[in-house]
Order: sequence, then structure tokens, then C-alpha cells
Amino acid sequence: MTHKPHTLARGVAIVGAGMSKFGAFPGKATRDLFVDAYQEMITSVDKGFDPKDIEALFIGNYSSDLFENQGHTAPIMADWTGLAPRAATRIENACASGGTAIRQGILAIASGLYDIVLVGGIEKMTDLATDRVTDTLATASDTLYETPAGFTFPGFYAAMATAYMHRYDATPESFMRVGLKNHENGALNEKAQFGATIRSIMDKKLAAAQAKGKPLPGWADEMAFLHDDRSNPVIAWPMRLFDCSPISDGAAALLLVSEDLARQFTDTPIYITGSGQASDVALHDRGDYTRLCAAQLAAQEAYRMSGLTPADIQLAEVHDCFTIAEVIATEDLGFFPAGHGFRAAEEGLTSRLGPKPINASGGLKSKGHPVGASGTGQAVEIWKQLRGQAGTRQVNGSPRVGLTHNVGGTGQTAVVHIYERR
Amino acid sequence: MTHKPHTLARGVAIVGAGMSKFGAFPGKATRDLFVDAYQEMITSVDKGFDPKDIEALFIGNYSSDLFENQGHTAPIMADWTGLAPRAATRIENACASGGTAIRQGILAIASGLYDIVLVGGIEKMTDLATDRVTDTLATASDTLYETPAGFTFPGFYAAMATAYMHRYDATPESFMRVGLKNHENGALNEKAQFGATIRSIMDKKLAAAQAKGKPLPGWADEMAFLHDDRSNPVIAWPMRLFDCSPISDGAAALLLVSEDLARQFTDTPIYITGSGQASDVALHDRGDYTRLCAAQLAAQEAYRMSGLTPADIQLAEVHDCFTIAEVIATEDLGFFPAGHGFRAAEEGLTSRLGPKPINASGGLKSKGHPVGASGTGQAVEIWKQLRGQAGTRQVNGSPRVGLTHNVGGTGQTAVVHIYERR
Repeated sequence: MTHKPHTLARGVAIVGAGMSKFGAFPGKATRDLFVDAYQEMITSVDKGFDPKDIEALFIGNYSSDLFENQGHTAPIMADWTGLAPRAATRIENACASGGTAIRQGILAIASGLYDIVLVGGIEKMTDLATDRVTDTLATASDTLYETPAGFTFPGFYAAMATAYMHRYDATPESFMRVGLKNHENGALNEKAQFGATIRSIMDKKLAAAQAKGKPLPGWADEMAFLHDDRSNPVIAWPMRLFDCSPISDGAAALLLVSEDLARQFTDTPIYITGSGQASDVALHDRGDYTRLCAAQLAAQEAYRMSGLTPADIQLAEVHDCFTIAEVIATEDLGFFPAGHGFRAAEEGLTSRLGPKPINASGGLKSKGHPVGASGTGQAVEIWKQLRGQAGTRQVNGSPRVGLTHNVGGTGQTAVVHIYERR
Repeated sequence: MTHKPHTLARGVAIVGAGMSKFGAFPGKATRDLFVDAYQEMITSVDKGFDPKDIEALFIGNYSSDLFENQGHTAPIMADWTGLAPRAATRIENACASGGTAIRQGILAIASGLYDIVLVGGIEKMTDLATDRVTDTLATASDTLYETPAGFTFPGFYAAMATAYMHRYDATPESFMRVGLKNHENGALNEKAQFGATIRSIMDKKLAAAQAKGKPLPGWADEMAFLHDDRSNPVIAWPMRLFDCSPISDGAAALLLVSEDLARQFTDTPIYITGSGQASDVALHDRGDYTRLCAAQLAAQEAYRMSGLTPADIQLAEVHDCFTIAEVIATEDLGFFPAGHGFRAAEEGLTSRLGPKPINASGGLKSKGHPVGASGTGQAVEIWKQLRGQAGTRQVNGSPRVGLTHNVGGTGQTAVVHIYERR
């Protein structure tokens, strides 16, 4: 059997994008958050359109079953947006559910069956107590072989971090630099769950301690704050609190159309020119914890499809569920050689105004990580940045090429997309 | 916006199919059941092939999260079949997850991205106690508005049955006839969970009672047995035990390839010439409980794509999660006019050797209903019947055209496929 090169029968563009605020919203169900995202998406379509022209929905969601006791969520999203009886399908690949839903939307349009599809990402996590959220997220690993050994997700990524430190010169401080950067970016994002720099968080804590007359720890600067076990406790060494993304509620929505229709919706469509997806064996079966093979393969597929190389990517939103994950991501994507990614945040290469901005949105770390929505949320950011609509957090240089990198579980799924303004 | 007619960029065929036994398997996890189905699928490919040629997996699963505490199931299926790092995606649409996964496989091939994909359906339900299974299944309804009113699935379908009886001349016995028929068919299916006719079940119960010297109920025939509250208790009137599909474990697997490659795998491919999917508002918002609009719309889409009409369909596997559901299905699909479907089983029209065989496999009722696997299991049956490989339950007349009808929840999703041997 010889395979033809993998090409899509026709191209796809994003012509509208919106998201809810990410955070903790006790009064809102998933459906409410999705309606928020959907409504913003509708108003984002420059030339307007009739929502009745939407032909199908692909909804990324990790586990409304466990989080909210609601399965069969996709038709509920169709119902609440007034889009029933359009075909609605839930896509689940753990924290890569949103990215996978984008890919399904692309395949659906390329197939010729649909011209206009709505891609959504949704998750409502904060109704459960934190320990139950941790257990729920742990179901995204191999629950026959991994969780019985006591692992939950901070532990998995801590194992990657220690393996990485063992092989390369990285220290816990290398990872803290990623958190610092992403909080700086998130402070400029009005949708972010933690829209504050670590310095401002630190200042607030210091002021509160002073007001109560409590003894002050010696927080001379952010790094002292991050090294302090009281302000930044170890979750699973070397991952501390500020190395971990939060528990979040949120939703995002994208309007995808066939390339030939794009300019009926906007003069500035964002074309999705590369898409890659791969799986991997469970973490305990891998020989190397310092990279995610699925992410490398997904990136290769996306680069091949788009005809671009890592050097062509002007900014990226990568899956920083933990700070170590961003370091590994920037290597898996080919932005930096293996073992060099950890210096990128330190040296400012990946800062918002640096040469290769990573997670200008604040990333999962600061923007929030409503797991099934995170992948579509990344695409919303790239859409805004490539259209010059990212406001105070706009990156330099009017970029034309962006990338998203979305990981499920311990890397058993990875999905990469490349976006272009033409 | 004017839509072009919905056509696929290229056709798709099934060239291999397999399933595990359906039933209760305490010693097996989902992954084990899927390996059973996968291995049978591999051996079913007439001309053989290299499994490494499989490019992607689409796995239908309702809720391994709640049933088995395992999310992110698709890459685990890739891992256990040796198919990692192939892209693996879980598709969830409640009990229509399997049918929806078939549709995603079709779209993926039609898109040009893949030539050869594995479609799976999986569910492992029997690890939980029955009341927890009932609660888990109830999450497929609208859990903000419906389950708080006390509804679980037997109640939803009982509401449809009473509405149907109110409008038409049907009686509870009309529904019993469907159960009788499907158990007769399932008795010929070596994979069925309840591979016994209702008469043989009755005879066994009578013999047991006699052996214990217990007083015998007056079971003169099957209908007396089915009317007896002791042997066939009311679950939610008019749905009794033998009107309800069982709780099941099981898996099914299909090998889908692009039309042009099909004859490299077999001289008898089964082409999927029609595919339809639709959603609906939640049950409590509908004006009519005697039909499923989503199923009618999905059928229309599939008929239009295939260029066929209901009269052309020579056999069908329909979603008889409850006996009333089969009655409504045969009307929604256009096999019988509204209000006439209930007579079909009575008059033998839908019996295995009748003019329009429905659920020759035994259906969900007798074959079993591992919810995420049921839709792909239906396609396995059609594959066998159209290839003349259904053994003792083979329908008459060497059929060339079959249909599957797969429903999610209360009909908030429906998926219809049409299959042809050419």
C-alpha cells in the first residue's frame, strides 16, 4: 500500500472567533459559558452573517460527564444557541479536545459535506471540590497502570521536569521564568482568569501581611517570592503552585468556512494551512520523558501541510498546563533545539515583545485552563493577534503566521495547527 | 448564502468488520473488548492487509469516564492495538456515539487527509451497579431540566409509548411483539448477550419453577408470559422488562477506506452511500413525542445522498433501546406511515424472513446495548448480511442495500447510514 501525500481536498479559514471569560463562575453552567463565547463569535464576523447558515457543530469537551453530570453535551450546545437541528458532535481527547474539534471541523469542510461549521470548546470544572477535579483530570492518564501508582497530573509533569533537569542544565528557576512571563502576558488579557503579574500578586500578599502586622518573608523580588515555600508551595517537586495552570470554567467558539467563501464573511480571514494530530503510548511505556513524540509528529504533519518551517512561525500558543510543558513544547515544535528551550524565557526570546512570542495570551497558566476549551481558546488568540486585534497585548511586527499546540493528558494526544493571514 | 448540495468529495467503503461478544464480562476492560473486535476485523479483510496502513482511529464511546473511570480513551485504543502514534479521536454522542464515529470516519476519508481509517465503538457498563448505570445513562438527557423531574431513560421512552398509544391504536402488546421478534433473531446470533427466544426463556423459567415445586403461573404462550407481572415486570409503564435493552459490555470495529482502494482489500466491499446526522432540542421542549425529528432529518439526508428511497432499503438495523423506539424508527425512516409501524412486527413485515427485516441481529434488545458500541455493531451486522455471511440468521433474497439508524439519548442526536453492495 502506498499512501498519497496527505492533502485536504479544500482549504479552510476562520472568519469569526469568540470566547467567554475564563475563571470560576459558580452561577453559570457550561451551556451559559458557550452562549457567551458564541455571541462574541457572532459579533466578530466583520461582514455579518445569518447564524442559520451554520451547518454543523463540533464541540470539544473533556468531561462534562464527571464535572457537571451532563453527557451528550453537543446537542445541548446546538439547542441553547438555537442551532438545532444541525448535526452536533462532541469531540473528546482530554485537554486536547478543543484542538481536535478544530481538526474535525476542518475535515468536515474539506470533505465537501459542509461549507460552514461552528467549532466549540467547553469546560465547567469549578463545581467540584479541588480533590475531585484532580481525580477527574487523572482519568486522562492510563487509569489501569498509572493512577493506581499514585500519580495525578502534577506528578506526571513533575516526572517530566525532573527527567529534563537530569538531562540538561535546567533548574526549578528555569520553569519559574515561564510562569513569570505568562503572568505578565495574562495581565494584559481581559479574559484571563489570573489577569495579574506575579509582582502584583506578590505586592498584594505583602500589603495584606503588613496590614495584619504579620512578619514579612524576605521577598525582595519575584524570584524570591517564587522560591518561598509559603507563597509558592511545592505541588509536586519541582512543580510549585505558580508552575501549574489553574482549575477553570470557560468556552470558546470559532466559525470555520471553506476557503472560497471566506471573503464573503470578512476581508481578513485567517486561513488554517496546517493541521497535525498524533497519539502516543501511555507515559509509563515511554523511554524518554523529555519530549512528547505525539507533539513532534503532529508538528511535522502541520509543517508539511502548510509548507512552512519552525522559523516561519511568528508567534505560538502552546499547551503550558505546567511550565515544564511549555519548555518541552518549544523544543518539540522545533523553535529551539532539544535542551535549549528552558533558556528561552530567561533570555526573553519567548516574551511577548521578543523574537518568538509564546503564549502572548497568558497561556493556560494565567489565562486559565478549562480543559476542553483551551485548544479553541488558543485559536481565538491567534485569530486576534494575526488580525492586529489583541489590544495592549498585541505582539510586535504585524505577524502573518501563528501556531497552536494542544496536548491531551500526558501527551497521548497532541494537535498542532498553523494559521496564516494572506 | 446559498448552499451547494451536500456531497462528499469521494466515496467510502467498509472492507473489514468485527465485534466482540456483547454481554457482561467482569474480567475484561474496554481495551480488551476492543482488541477482540479489532482482531476479528483484521481477519475479516478478505485479501489481508498490513495494519500499519491504518492512518487514524475514530472511537465512539459514551462514557468510559463514568462507567470505568477512564477518560481519553481513544489513544488507549491506539496503544492497545499497536496503532500509536496514529491520530486517535473519541467521538461522543451518547448512544449514537458509534454511528457518529462512522460519520467522522467517512468525513476524514472524504476530506482527502486519510485513505484508511479504523472506526470503533466501545462501552463497558457492567462494572457499576444497575442503579448507577441508570443514573449514568440519565446524563444523556438534559440534566438541568429533565432528570431533576425524576426521569431516567425507561421513563422517557415510556412517555413516548403512552403518547403513541394515545394517538394511535397501539397497545402494550404491540410493543411486546417487537421484543418477541428481536429475541427470535438474537437466538441465531452467537455474539448476542441474550441469545435465546422468549419461549426458551419462558420454558427455562417454567422448568425451574416446576423443579422447585412452586406454583406455576398460567403461561400458556409467550404473550401470557410477557403480560405476567412476575415474569415481565413493569419498568415504566407500558415498558416492561422485555421492552428494555440490557446493560452490556462490548466493542465493534470497522475498516473504512476510500472507494478507489476498496477492491485492494476485498472483492466484496460494502459502500457507504448515504450518511445523515441531525440534532434536536431536549425532549421536554418538543411538541410531539410520537416521532424523532432528528431521525427523520438524518434519514432524509442519507436518502438524498444515496439517491435511494425507503422502498429501496432491503433490511435495517434500528435503535431499539426500547421496543417503542423500533416502532417509531420504522416510521421515521419512511418504512411505514406514521401510526402504522406498530402493526409491522405483529403482521410479520419486519421479521427476519419478512419483506422488511428489522434488527435481524437481535437488535439492541437481544444482541445487547453497550451504548457507545451499538452504532458500529449495527454496521457490522449490515456488512455481514450484505455479504451473505450472517449464517443461520441470514435474511432472504441476497440483499444489496441496508440501513442503520442510531439514536442518542431521547433523540437529541440521530445518525442514519445507507450501505450498498455493488
